[in-house]
Amino acid sequence: MKASILIIGDEVLAGATQDTNSGFIALELRKWGVDIDRILTVSDEVSTIKQALEFCFQTSELVISTGGIGPTKDDKTKSAISQFFRTELVFDSGTYSHLKELFRQRNRLELLEMNRGQAMVFSDAQVLLNRYGTAPGQVISKNGRTAVVLPGVPYEVKPLIKENLPTILKRYGLNTQFYTRTVSVVGIPESKLAQILEDWELRLPANTTLSYLPVGNRIKLRLTAKGPVAMELEKQLEYHISMLQTLIGPNIIGKHKDKIEDILKDVILEKSLSLSVAESCTGGLLSGLITSVSGSSSYFKGGVVAYEAAQKSRILNVQEHTIATCTTVSPEVASQMAEGCRHLFNSSVSIATTGVAGPLSDSYNNPIGLAYIAVSTSQGTSVEKVHLSHLDREDFMRFISQRALQFLIQVLQK
Amino acid sequence: MKASILIIGDEVLAGATQDTNSGFIALELRKWGVDIDRILTVSDEVSTIKQALEFCFQTSELVISTGGIGPTKDDKTKSAISQFFRTELVFDSGTYSHLKELFRQRNRLELLEMNRGQAMVFSDAQVLLNRYGTAPGQVISKNGRTAVVLPGVPYEVKPLIKENLPTILKRYGLNTQFYTRTVSVVGIPESKLAQILEDWELRLPANTTLSYLPVGNRIKLRLTAKGPVAMELEKQLEYHISMLQTLIGPNIIGKHKDKIEDILKDVILEKSLSLSVAESCTGGLLSGLITSVSGSSSYFKGGVVAYEAAQKSRILNVQEHTIATCTTVSPEVASQMAEGCRHLFNSSVSIATTGVAGPLSDSYNNPIGLAYIAVSTSQGTSVEKVHLSHLDREDFMRFISQRALQFLIQVLQK
Repeated sequence: MKASILIIGDEVLAGATQDTNSGFIALELRKWGVDIDRILTVSDEVSTIKQALEFCFQTSELVISTGGIGPTKDDKTKSAISQFFRTELVFDSGTYSHLKELFRQRNRLELLEMNRGQAMVFSDAQVLLNRYGTAPGQVISKNGRTAVVLPGVPYEVKPLIKENLPTILKRYGLNTQFYTRTVSVVGIPESKLAQILEDWELRLPANTTLSYLPVGNRIKLRLTAKGPVAMELEKQLEYHISMLQTLIGPNIIGKHKDKIEDILKDVILEKSLSLSVAESCTGGLLSGLITSVSGSSSYFKGGVVAYEAAQKSRILNVQEHTIATCTTVSPEVASQMAEGCRHLFNSSVSIATTGVAGPLSDSYNNPIGLAYIAVSTSQGTSVEKVHLSHLDREDFMRFISQRALQFLIQVLQK
Repeated sequence: MKASILIIGDEVLAGATQDTNSGFIALELRKWGVDIDRILTVSDEVSTIKQALEFCFQTSELVISTGGIGPTKDDKTKSAISQFFRTELVFDSGTYSHLKELFRQRNRLELLEMNRGQAMVFSDAQVLLNRYGTAPGQVISKNGRTAVVLPGVPYEVKPLIKENLPTILKRYGLNTQFYTRTVSVVGIPESKLAQILEDWELRLPANTTLSYLPVGNRIKLRLTAKGPVAMELEKQLEYHISMLQTLIGPNIIGKHKDKIEDILKDVILEKSLSLSVAESCTGGLLSGLITSVSGSSSYFKGGVVAYEAAQKSRILNVQEHTIATCTTVSPEVASQMAEGCRHLFNSSVSIATTGVAGPLSDSYNNPIGLAYIAVSTSQGTSVEKVHLSHLDREDFMRFISQRALQFLIQVLQK
């Protein structure tokens, strides 16, 4: 079974808004064994949307669209869909009652006429009530083609998909399961890794696909097996990964989780550690990455963003003469930040970052893109130097955050 | 002139990797007045890529692709393009020398045979040397159709686009300029806003488009004017925005910048303030948002992520009996966090967040999605309550970070 995802919105096309709906929907569809064929973003224009539907239905039985059904004038999706499916828009009293109730809850007593239009649905549609916004979702099916029409706001899309996808997919009687494992490898360049794994890769069975996904200088090997029985797929991948272990064992930092912050959680919980963070160049993103994991409050004590140099001394107890002689971007300051942080939060492990995110150099004329990462444990302090002059500010902050957690895991696994 | 962006990669289709290349390329193309027609993501298969090119070239003269040209086995893009354009792949000695130099710089003395394939280019292509990776970019043109073939790694794509786009676009003799302004509105629901602005919107000239982009509970009104002379477009939009000011002036928190963190920078610099942050439920993301802005080091002193309850007292001086009687998620604790933070960092303004990100409730059984944001200034402390039970953990953290900066701006503008 193949599906396409259609993102409707000029703001995404123009690069002004980052689409996150397609990734979420794709992940949910994959759980049901649905192959994603195309993700297409087009403008909010009737003829364009009709062409897009035609293109997607060439290869897909199911198209899920998001966006273009709000109450404002820039929304043409409903007209396009009704023309494409040759169906009428009719007033739905159930949707209207739901809208009234929603407005009542939000204390907007005056139900605006404009929102009345949101109770207009396709005459033969199944309506998916939207508890978090005014535009309902709709499912419309004709001649083996099914469209699921959703609003564009991600927090409305997520519950609509989670609650309704099982029912929507029932008609396809899916019996293929997908099982995915991600193995994280560090310390081998991609082409070298591919060479080492060549024979192993050639022996993977036909139902198994392999992707190389570089993230920072970690390479994620994503193995996906498909077949009728999930438990067999699980065993099968476990076997292939055990073979991988014999080939590149010391370079593997994670064999289950995909995200570095989730891999860290497993390592920290296994060793019963607690963690604190002192950040300069990552500006809070490193803490943000750690705390994005549910359950992180059981091991993450907290962090300091010591952005101004003086705060590194005042709060983290970095020696002023170390800053004066080595500058804030130095292995010495990174180490003292990590050590000061470990004491401040009384954690068993701590990690610190200091660097020059750019686009301007710092007051010491350190080169843009230079950073030091320090990890402090009861065994001592380790420092890693990174220099990435080609990243812009935000990418640099994200990359160093990823790299910091990767370094932390490597230190903890030694 | 219309262009499409083609993202090639199973990992994006499967939702495993978030595509950020398309947004970046779209923004760069828009600067040159190029309309983006379609953004299409497809699988790494020869026939699929050929269909995708055919679809994009139906309406676009230019297609920029990313991904699918790495050294590993999952890459089929080059074959597809060579078939589509009926061209050969030939060995390019210039690219090969560049590769050798790149490997020398990285101290990988052994130039792997696998990477030799990356010096295979289309016989009639213009090669774009890639300083940050092994796969070069290429430009190929035939019968009025131009394809720009780029690698998939974002930090390789960005410089390749920035350095080469002007030359690539020269052939189109573009004389249409685009000028965009974003006005940020708070405190009016979208449908109500649309009603208030209806007459104003109807009077916008034909060369001007308007989009409503809700972000959290801020609505961004994006106005784009196109025409031959940028300065005239600027004047024109300035006029329309001055009309907007008379209609909804008190609800406008920014008239130039798009991102809330950039709007904040303008407000803070105008008032010569300094800022610090105390975070609980946003876990570092709020600091990360503030520091993502270049130049933020001139006003951002730093932050504390006081994740564990005890750290709120130890570092931020929140009274233990306040925590005991009101719980950590309370207006009282938010206020004391902000006040303690302002003293710790000696900043003129501070902001604090505390809440329950979920998916589990906290130890006080506060409801998931409840949060308090406090802003402390020399004039006193203001608190805002937010309750969003329908967001997942990461969305909640991001939403509260956005909302916190929005609240801070509102307080500072009063």
